[in-house]
Amino acid sequence: MSTLYRPELLYSQPAFTEGAGLLVSPTGSVLEAGTNDPATVIDLPGKALFPGFVNAHSHSFQRLIRGKSESRVTSGRDFWSWRGTMYHAAAKLDPQDVYDVARMAFLEMVLSGTTTVGEFHYLHNAPGGRPYDDPNLLSKQIIAAAQSVGIRIVLLRSAYFRSGYELPPDPGQIRFFESGPQFLVNMEALSKEYPADSAEVRLGVAPHSLRAVPLRPLKEIAGWTRERKLPLHMHVAEQTGENEACLREYGLTPVALLGREGLLAPDFTAVHAIHITADEIEQLAGANVTVCSCPTTERNLGDGVIAADQVMRRGIRIAFGSDSQAQIDPLEDARELEYHLRQQRAILDQIGEQTLASRLFDCATVHGARALGVPAGELTAGSSADFFTVDLDDVSIAGHSGNDLLPLAVFSLSRSAIRDVMVNGRWVVRDQRHPLQEEIVSRFKELHRKLWGSS
Amino acid sequence: MSTLYRPELLYSQPAFTEGAGLLVSPTGSVLEAGTNDPATVIDLPGKALFPGFVNAHSHSFQRLIRGKSESRVTSGRDFWSWRGTMYHAAAKLDPQDVYDVARMAFLEMVLSGTTTVGEFHYLHNAPGGRPYDDPNLLSKQIIAAAQSVGIRIVLLRSAYFRSGYELPPDPGQIRFFESGPQFLVNMEALSKEYPADSAEVRLGVAPHSLRAVPLRPLKEIAGWTRERKLPLHMHVAEQTGENEACLREYGLTPVALLGREGLLAPDFTAVHAIHITADEIEQLAGANVTVCSCPTTERNLGDGVIAADQVMRRGIRIAFGSDSQAQIDPLEDARELEYHLRQQRAILDQIGEQTLASRLFDCATVHGARALGVPAGELTAGSSADFFTVDLDDVSIAGHSGNDLLPLAVFSLSRSAIRDVMVNGRWVVRDQRHPLQEEIVSRFKELHRKLWGSS
Repeated sequence: MSTLYRPELLYSQPAFTEGAGLLVSPTGSVLEAGTNDPATVIDLPGKALFPGFVNAHSHSFQRLIRGKSESRVTSGRDFWSWRGTMYHAAAKLDPQDVYDVARMAFLEMVLSGTTTVGEFHYLHNAPGGRPYDDPNLLSKQIIAAAQSVGIRIVLLRSAYFRSGYELPPDPGQIRFFESGPQFLVNMEALSKEYPADSAEVRLGVAPHSLRAVPLRPLKEIAGWTRERKLPLHMHVAEQTGENEACLREYGLTPVALLGREGLLAPDFTAVHAIHITADEIEQLAGANVTVCSCPTTERNLGDGVIAADQVMRRGIRIAFGSDSQAQIDPLEDARELEYHLRQQRAILDQIGEQTLASRLFDCATVHGARALGVPAGELTAGSSADFFTVDLDDVSIAGHSGNDLLPLAVFSLSRSAIRDVMVNGRWVVRDQRHPLQEEIVSRFKELHRKLWGSS
Repeated sequence: MSTLYRPELLYSQPAFTEGAGLLVSPTGSVLEAGTNDPATVIDLPGKALFPGFVNAHSHSFQRLIRGKSESRVTSGRDFWSWRGTMYHAAAKLDPQDVYDVARMAFLEMVLSGTTTVGEFHYLHNAPGGRPYDDPNLLSKQIIAAAQSVGIRIVLLRSAYFRSGYELPPDPGQIRFFESGPQFLVNMEALSKEYPADSAEVRLGVAPHSLRAVPLRPLKEIAGWTRERKLPLHMHVAEQTGENEACLREYGLTPVALLGREGLLAPDFTAVHAIHITADEIEQLAGANVTVCSCPTTERNLGDGVIAADQVMRRGIRIAFGSDSQAQIDPLEDARELEYHLRQQRAILDQIGEQTLASRLFDCATVHGARALGVPAGELTAGSSADFFTVDLDDVSIAGHSGNDLLPLAVFSLSRSAIRDVMVNGRWVVRDQRHPLQEEIVSRFKELHRKLWGSS
């Protein structure tokens, strides 16, 4: 039997409708938005109903280094030294640990209104560097963690073949390395276990970067991925050092090289895309790729700032990722995309017809869903019933009028306002509590102690 | 009888002590930190106890325009057009409204761990521009709002004498205007009603800016203020337009003029101080002023970015303010002070001995208390017992070790982790609820409807 969820206000892009219900099928799909058909009715008085956020770029295990790298003394001054702290954590995790930390990151995501995560997963081998008997063991641990928490996952299994152009293998990366043929065998095996049309678990392919994957195997991987119509994600132009190495190796920057080789296409997501030129923006736009921006991580890492105004002006979709988990707060990502550019106000408002808030909210929802190839991020017939409710009396957003609830939420909503979260028709969070919350937090604290010593 | 609060972890600058208690006198002062003396014991298991935040610069009524100015269509592209929206709200509020919106802003502050607010208050006259029978009526409404919520307040009564150099009076400002002599009479009257040594209500003086207060009355006001040893706050160099007008009028920038006239001193707080030169930083440092930075507002207004590294390198104390209430989140202010500068990591970590997190936390606590002249912001004998507790199992900060709880909190803590808030020895928030919360929110929503129309 279908269920009708009846909040005070229902998001219907780009604003909210009063008194309209969302009709959800027994299998968790939206049948109709804005209806009042009789069905099992669940009233949600005093709540607004928003489509769930899509987190298009996550490295869940990095939750373990939160707070561990905020001083030059302990972790140096740039991305490359921060990476040392991150590798230290990556080197030690056993399969249970990978599961425990992923559950912790995914728990925080659902409590923050995120209903789909794209996990860019590059931790494959056992500590020491040998593959596990099942080389997909850790991928499966991550998927199991998502299933335990109840978040929809697209496991973007990452290819990582070398440390970089003319660089010797970095011992910090031995758990990431596979050969090109091994990678495809492993992907093939994994894809046999997860049907492509599953509602809650999907796969994608993530050649880590042009630094870690040379052009020739990259093309093979892209071919394999496109035959199967899976999403293709890659770190692109996050660091100037990465661009320079690519120039040395190929005589072209990453974007130019990917463009020349026909690798840019609508199924391609370029993660970061910070250090790119106007010509490269044209190239990304012409190929209709998605760019995944990770503002809260990028500001934490000091990566630099994406020229979101130029990117959007060319019609490129921007999605968001929580990346290093410095914070898990999709609306802070939304704010920062705009605020990073502000010397005037509402920089991203002057592009086309869409208002600023609606544009940023799309980045946090539909563009991420598009990048991950899942029918989510919006509340229209046929989409998954992925949503969260917001307490209209929360101090961060109480008091609204006309069409200002969306800008109010985008610019000011605090996580404390998010009450209930549904993924694919099932409640995952009720009244700010996840049923496994205590167990997940307690296991994570244990893992944290094991890794870093007791406090 | 004294009370011993015994959390799992007690903040003792710059880190935390396990198992130590905080002994608080019946009048709300800290008697001893790190003690375990017998007294009435209140155990706070699973909690860390932090000193309360000090918000050194607030305009509470601006909570009413949250979300109303995030599009170029509705409120234009710069500070000056945003100001139009703000004046629209300011023009309409009656005394009850001023009270209602102040309670709403103060409620959100205490729920965010803020225990002292410096309210920079410039709304004095009735709509239409005539003084109320009691010209301090609105100041008293704000103070009453703070008392109702239970937050400590320093009412920084603002002097506003003109629209600007060679500008005709702006009708949007008629509720702000007083003459110089009136202002001092009103300050005098107000100060008779609030004893200077009150624990919960103090006064300060806030000449709005050099734009609104010409030099001659400014010097009189400063003299009056210093005789009474009250704090002196002023907007300084927030906008380049403000600097240019000052140059035209006096041949000097605001900082240079204030310096030449002997107005910069340890009791002086320069709010914003964004558009200042290296020489001006020297001048502010030499005079030992406090700078109050409002990063979440400044990024919202597109004001520009304070050179916090240069300012801190010269030893200037930076405090924080929530200013326009775009967000009320002192830790987001702390993050942004650093993140605005990041092209590398931990920019503000290389200054002196202090770690980055400790430095930023001081900005959010002790430096604000110093700017407002109140014995708060730290948990040492003689300070007010102003603190908040943090749930160590909250997903944003669970898992810590050694000395990383402070960086973990500064860079990642979400408001959802803040559980209980005490001001001057009295619980104001228990388990995330304020006893008047429903009434305050409901009255605010009513006011919002009255001002903006129904949704």
